[in-house]
Amino acid sequence: MKQTLRDLAEKLGCRLLGDGSITITTVSSLQSATSESMVFVEDAKHLDAALSSSAAAVIAGQFAATDAKQKPILISTQPRLTFARAAKLLRDPDKIRAIHTGATVPASAKIGKNVSIGPRAILGEQVKIGDETTIGAGCVIGDNATIGIHCRIDANVTIYPGTALGDRVIVQAGAVLGSEGFGYVRDSATGRYEQFPQIGRLVIEDDVEIGANSTIDRGALDETRIRRGTKIDNLVHIGHNVQIGENVVIAAQTGLSGSAVVEDNVIIGGQVGIADHVRIEAGAILGAQSGIPSKKVIRGKGVVFWGTPARPIREYLRELAFLSRAAKRER
Amino acid sequence: MKQTLRDLAEKLGCRLLGDGSITITTVSSLQSATSESMVFVEDAKHLDAALSSSAAAVIAGQFAATDAKQKPILISTQPRLTFARAAKLLRDPDKIRAIHTGATVPASAKIGKNVSIGPRAILGEQVKIGDETTIGAGCVIGDNATIGIHCRIDANVTIYPGTALGDRVIVQAGAVLGSEGFGYVRDSATGRYEQFPQIGRLVIEDDVEIGANSTIDRGALDETRIRRGTKIDNLVHIGHNVQIGENVVIAAQTGLSGSAVVEDNVIIGGQVGIADHVRIEAGAILGAQSGIPSKKVIRGKGVVFWGTPARPIREYLRELAFLSRAAKRER
Amino acid sequence: MKQTLRDLAEKLGCRLLGDGSITITTVSSLQSATSESMVFVEDAKHLDAALSSSAAAVIAGQFAATDAKQKPILISTQPRLTFARAAKLLRDPDKIRAIHTGATVPASAKIGKNVSIGPRAILGEQVKIGDETTIGAGCVIGDNATIGIHCRIDANVTIYPGTALGDRVIVQAGAVLGSEGFGYVRDSATGRYEQFPQIGRLVIEDDVEIGANSTIDRGALDETRIRRGTKIDNLVHIGHNVQIGENVVIAAQTGLSGSAVVEDNVIIGGQVGIADHVRIEAGAILGAQSGIPSKKVIRGKGVVFWGTPARPIREYLRELAFLSRAAKRER
Repeated sequence: MKQTLRDLAEKLGCRLLGDGSITITTVSSLQSATSESMVFVEDAKHLDAALSSSAAAVIAGQFAATDAKQKPILISTQPRLTFARAAKLLRDPDKIRAIHTGATVPASAKIGKNVSIGPRAILGEQVKIGDETTIGAGCVIGDNATIGIHCRIDANVTIYPGTALGDRVIVQAGAVLGSEGFGYVRDSATGRYEQFPQIGRLVIEDDVEIGANSTIDRGALDETRIRRGTKIDNLVHIGHNVQIGENVVIAAQTGLSGSAVVEDNVIIGGQVGIADHVRIEAGAILGAQSGIPSKKVIRGKGVVFWGTPARPIREYLRELAFLSRAAKRER
Repeated sequence: MKQTLRDLAEKLGCRLLGDGSITITTVSSLQSATSESMVFVEDAKHLDAALSSSAAAVIAGQFAATDAKQKPILISTQPRLTFARAAKLLRDPDKIRAIHTGATVPASAKIGKNVSIGPRAILGEQVKIGDETTIGAGCVIGDNATIGIHCRIDANVTIYPGTALGDRVIVQAGAVLGSEGFGYVRDSATGRYEQFPQIGRLVIEDDVEIGANSTIDRGALDETRIRRGTKIDNLVHIGHNVQIGENVVIAAQTGLSGSAVVEDNVIIGGQVGIADHVRIEAGAILGAQSGIPSKKVIRGKGVVFWGTPARPIREYLRELAFLSRAAKRER
Repeated sequence: MKQTLRDLAEKLGCRLLGDGSITITTVSSLQSATSESMVFVEDAKHLDAALSSSAAAVIAGQFAATDAKQKPILISTQPRLTFARAAKLLRDPDKIRAIHTGATVPASAKIGKNVSIGPRAILGEQVKIGDETTIGAGCVIGDNATIGIHCRIDANVTIYPGTALGDRVIVQAGAVLGSEGFGYVRDSATGRYEQFPQIGRLVIEDDVEIGANSTIDRGALDETRIRRGTKIDNLVHIGHNVQIGENVVIAAQTGLSGSAVVEDNVIIGGQVGIADHVRIEAGAILGAQSGIPSKKVIRGKGVVFWGTPARPIREYLRELAFLSRAAKRER
């Protein structure tokens, strides 16, 4: 959606240096810049590269506000964030917003205004979809599920009955929300496993984003909950009864076992394994592939933990260094 | 499906203490108990909490059979198991069981009695579906696949042609059964990989349960087989020609490479990696994230193995303790 | 598709010993061989087993060309490769190739000759599908995606808008191609994460094969690219901006973070974790479960790396051996 640089500067709350009448249609990298794209730089040393790129304009920090430049500049205290927001402002609106004739929408479903439902999407009884939400082709939304406003559910997502999603939630293709957890009781007489009831629900709060083919189980008796603003990458597994706080980041292929608790602002790398009943306290950082054994508590705002079992990274690196030296010595 | 406590006691084979005329509609946790729910306790120290909860009745062990209590009690030798079975007895029956008009069912398919097939499910030629089985919306069942009685295949599952499922099998959303294995032959002249034939099949026996978005490959020339009663969590990968025994438990995100063998009653934690041609002998326990290198044999009923390469946990913990001490000493 | 052994020998470029008039219908293992199947052996010590199997004929190396044998033999310099190619020649052609009436194909789509599109597959606007390509049931192909000739896209695959696939690409069920990458900018004022633009694209070159439920993200601003002949197993995650070279092999459940580069002929085991901006140079081999920390360069054609952080396997094994000895000594 093309806009003048002046309009963008205003909406983004940036100081404009240079010609505001030029038209911007997209954001780009330096390499793929065009005469209608905008790029960004976060430090002075990359400013020249940005200015000599093909871009129409540059988003930069205060460091760029020194003298006249060969391109218009938007001055921002957070150039990368401003760039991200510019991309949103420039995004083309969806061509058509409608309920596709090939979608299955029962009379009992409550559909908001300006909702888009793709071909072959199937909504169960009593499903609620908020205003401006998009449901992709091939999605299956179970009975009594509720989805808030401005959500985007991509193609072939499955949402089990009774699952609740807040507003502005994004779920990428193939994700499964609200599946039954992995809980069994072994009959001591026969040695066979029987399913422990998995009749709770899954609640996903506002602004949560979930990657492709990730799976999140419902609670066993009560609920699994993902709090506001948490971002989850692809192929992540979240077990039953897990509680995840606000603004948590979970990279790809990480798994959280049943009843784990992750507090606010935790950062979790890829392929991390978190066992059952673990608690990760607010602000901790778990390095990729680290493992937290059952029932452990990880504590330390801003402290990086690594290894299996996870320990403070300084300690872990010291052990690795010792091991390397000692093994060589003994050879 | 509401029932009197007396009826439940009888079906569950429990001794009833107190008023059997009360009505139970569900099971619950202590926190979410209501005047129509039933809770359970496994040891004497939690009994008071259960009795003072809002629950209508309590399932407990022999320890609770001492004197008159403020709530009716069912006495069971395995309270957790009885609770799981009570949940099944109380489950509401599916509202409607029917073949949805939007499903694709060719004339050559053999469909049992009281089968439910969801909207947009697609059955291939010669598919057989047993009595009382439910096929979810959006499933794709390939030609000549067979599914037994009382199975539940959730939404958007893909079953490749020729795959055979036994009775009471549960497959959660997005799982893929019978895909082609990862086997290639490198042409030494060109350096290119060409697919080794993946024309075997996948056999899943009775009472197996498979989690959301898990993938199980067919055999290359012969078969991949998952034996009776084995339970598989979400996002698990099982390669071609793998043989898994009875009553095996495999937690989320574990992967088994081609031709691995897992014997009966093995327990495998999450994110475990089992390389090709490994044998895990009956009753062994593999800790989360452990790794078993190619062709290894893991032996030891009830022995826990951990680490990569996996070793008996005592040994592994001793090594970790030594490493921690020695690294500190040398600092 | 049945053929005489003589015809097969000619098409496979093999020397035929014995009766070429017999009919072959399939390839098989030694155990499951029948009077119409062909087996293979790669070394002299297994030749007797092959000759005494029920197979109609044997593919073997020069070692088998000594004297008259009880079965016809095809002599090949690469018996396993010849066996793989024989399987392709013997494969039955698809029964029906057609665009299913239940598929959604807009007028703007460009569909090649002899294309097969399964029931409920949905093609977006301007999608291009090359000759002889098969699109499985339930696939969702976004606007402006292009798919080359002789591709096979299995059931329930999601391909995001603008993704480009070359020729002879195979994508197994449930895979997601072109999803948005995991890139966020944290607003330092509010602590909230906002999405960094994920508006690039995904390009998959000729002869690439992708396993079930794998996910490959589009580039953030530019492209993610998988080069010719690379093979990817099930449940693999490939992040935004990743560049993968030719003839790379990536086993199941491995994950590559944003902007990682993997050069030609690399072999990557299962459950390997490759962090952002890593470079794996041509011909390196990464053992299962190894981990490569952010920005590292792994160098060494034919060298096996193992562990987290990954190091040359000799070094890693020496460290493991030292640790085991030292921990025992100190006990």
